[in-house]
Amino acid sequence: MEIKPYKKDSEYSYALGAFVTFELIDAAPEYVEKVLVHSTFTDKEKLMRMCAGRRIPVETNDKLIAKLSDKENVFVIGVFKKFSSKLDSTRPHLVLDNPSNMGNLGTIMRTSCGMGIFDVAIIGNGADMFNPKTVRASMGSFFRIQCERFDSFDDYLGTYGSEERGIFPFMLDSAKFLLPGQEHGPIYSLVFGNEATGLDASYASKGTPLKIAQTEYVDSLNLTIAVGIAEYVFTKT
Amino acid sequence: MEIKPYKKDSEYSYALGAFVTFELIDAAPEYVEKVLVHSTFTDKEKLMRMCAGRRIPVETNDKLIAKLSDKENVFVIGVFKKFSSKLDSTRPHLVLDNPSNMGNLGTIMRTSCGMGIFDVAIIGNGADMFNPKTVRASMGSFFRIQCERFDSFDDYLGTYGSEERGIFPFMLDSAKFLLPGQEHGPIYSLVFGNEATGLDASYASKGTPLKIAQTEYVDSLNLTIAVGIAEYVFTKT
Repeated sequence: MEIKPYKKDSEYSYALGAFVTFELIDAAPEYVEKVLVHSTFTDKEKLMRMCAGRRIPVETNDKLIAKLSDKENVFVIGVFKKFSSKLDSTRPHLVLDNPSNMGNLGTIMRTSCGMGIFDVAIIGNGADMFNPKTVRASMGSFFRIQCERFDSFDDYLGTYGSEERGIFPFMLDSAKFLLPGQEHGPIYSLVFGNEATGLDASYASKGTPLKIAQTEYVDSLNLTIAVGIAEYVFTKT
Repeated sequence: MEIKPYKKDSEYSYALGAFVTFELIDAAPEYVEKVLVHSTFTDKEKLMRMCAGRRIPVETNDKLIAKLSDKENVFVIGVFKKFSSKLDSTRPHLVLDNPSNMGNLGTIMRTSCGMGIFDVAIIGNGADMFNPKTVRASMGSFFRIQCERFDSFDDYLGTYGSEERGIFPFMLDSAKFLLPGQEHGPIYSLVFGNEATGLDASYASKGTPLKIAQTEYVDSLNLTIAVGIAEYVFTKT
């Protein structure tokens, strides 16, 4: 296996940085191919112990780290094989329709993992969930959630839609506000659109559309923050 | 007046981009010195009308735009004189102790403006609120809120603390959770620490510390998202 800079069709991806690599080894050791470490990395003991216990090879290779890390200040890289996941049909889901920014996607994974929604559906061919930038922005939460891609929202519904599952598309022109005591059953899907365009009008008929009240002074909330607020309300109510 | 790339001690700062410049002209015309426009900008009519009505000079200057915009794709720049603001003592405040990232600070201003908290106190010498990066990340919300800097939280309390004002520091080790129906009076201050370090222990005695419930799988929430959730709960409850 030759380790090259990441591309979307690569068989492998990279956890950049010690923190993200620790999360990878802890949560998904079965996918770790090897760990690269820089000769100047100072916290080797913990890393060696974690890798030895799971029979993960460790290689000191400053040149390869520089080549893979793209100017970022990185001393450890976890090389992992891409994997596919299925969502849990008995749990709440977050559904993202064509998210376009990898930093946002990673931040949303981290928030979702923190709020306790561990299943994320991604509709369309937007931001690449395996890209090292997404994984790094997730602070490793990517390895603690299930992430499944679908060609369309109808495909998603075909697989996971059910009578028990409440569907809540977040749309700026909805008449109904998300309130702190929002009623919902135990199984639901929170659906959010792309950063620039939101959800198209067809989503209004696919569930109970909600909007987050905001003043007239902003166009919209940042997507990552809207998701955080919605997940907070649904998981704490 | 010579227009130079922005520095922290500059007398002027810049609204980069047409959207942010429109917000500047609309919300704070009295501080606009002039507007620079690129010869290829296509939406000149609206801009000329807005500037003419407020006697703001418009200058076509491609070179100066390239010099000030630092590689970003910018066709309009609003040059504005820095100004000082005072918070409104009768309204809720957001207090940020040493925020370090200008993108975060701008995003928080936008969220705050969207949630309806228009008064932001900044403690210490962290991210520069006037830096064009902060202003751009705020999408122009910077011009719609009051932002006042203090050397210390005690200085802030000395000016705005009162019997009516509830103080709520957000601290990960607080015993009390922020719940969707959180009780509070009409005047309150939500206090958040730095991205990396949070608030120091001394804040626990300065009000009612709260934490946002999160799973064991993340170290903390992103600061911008924690602020969004807290502002949502307080303004919608």
